[in-house]
Amino acid sequence: MPNIYDSAYNLETAIRESDEFKNLKTAYETVMNDPSAKEMFESFRDTQMELQEKQMQGLEISEEEVEKARTVVEAVQEHQDIAKLMEVEQSLNLVINDISRIITKPLEELYGSTEEEAN
Amino acid sequence: MPNIYDSAYNLETAIRESDEFKNLKTAYETVMNDPSAKEMFESFRDTQMELQEKQMQGLEISEEEVEKARTVVEAVQEHQDIAKLMEVEQSLNLVINDISRIITKPLEELYGSTEEEAN
Ligand SMILES: [Ca+2]
Ligand SMILES: [Ca+2]
Repeated sequence: MPNIYDSAYNLETAIRESDEFKNLKTAYETVMNDPSAKEMFESFRDTQMELQEKQMQGLEISEEEVEKARTVVEAVQEHQDIAKLMEVEQSLNLVINDISRIITKPLEELYGSTEEEAN
Repeated sequence: MPNIYDSAYNLETAIRESDEFKNLKTAYETVMNDPSAKEMFESFRDTQMELQEKQMQGLEISEEEVEKARTVVEAVQEHQDIAKLMEVEQSLNLVINDISRIITKPLEELYGSTEEEAN
């Protein structure tokens, strides 16, 4: 029987050694070592987080804020290094989401099956 | 080099075969097969989720709601099978939190290190 913690550490190593993670590391360091790219990327991140927080709290997002977000998104999409960073982040996010689905399957089956019986 | 998906499926198996998961399965089925326990447990869950949603949305929680929640919590704590279920759920949650910390470490190190340099 495999041990949970051994398996988790093996998975951590697999992530760390994956192309997806290595590509992310390279793309992230490229942006962080370029001060103007770094500032643009962080402004994008801050804008996105502010809007997400507002949405989660059910607050209205003004036309001005939507316009500001659009401007920032357009700027980062035209910046080659940042666009690359966002692309590799998304690749790794897809993998992380897959992992999350795989390891929560036992719990989903347990809670799901009894719910079905009840319906 | 270990493959990410192989490692994730190994971890899923390890979770499924763990004592924590088997204990949860037994405790959950015991409650779900007892209609009055099932109803009490689901009422507890619903109350907790409502309060959590309100908190996340920054809405005020009335004294009446706090009182209702306290009553439901007291009832489930005195019900042996439900108390057992909550206990084993918490054990498995601790393990799941550990797993989550382990496998997100590469990302945390990457994003964390550059943030530190910037300060
Ligand atoms: Ca910042
Ligand atoms: Ca229900």
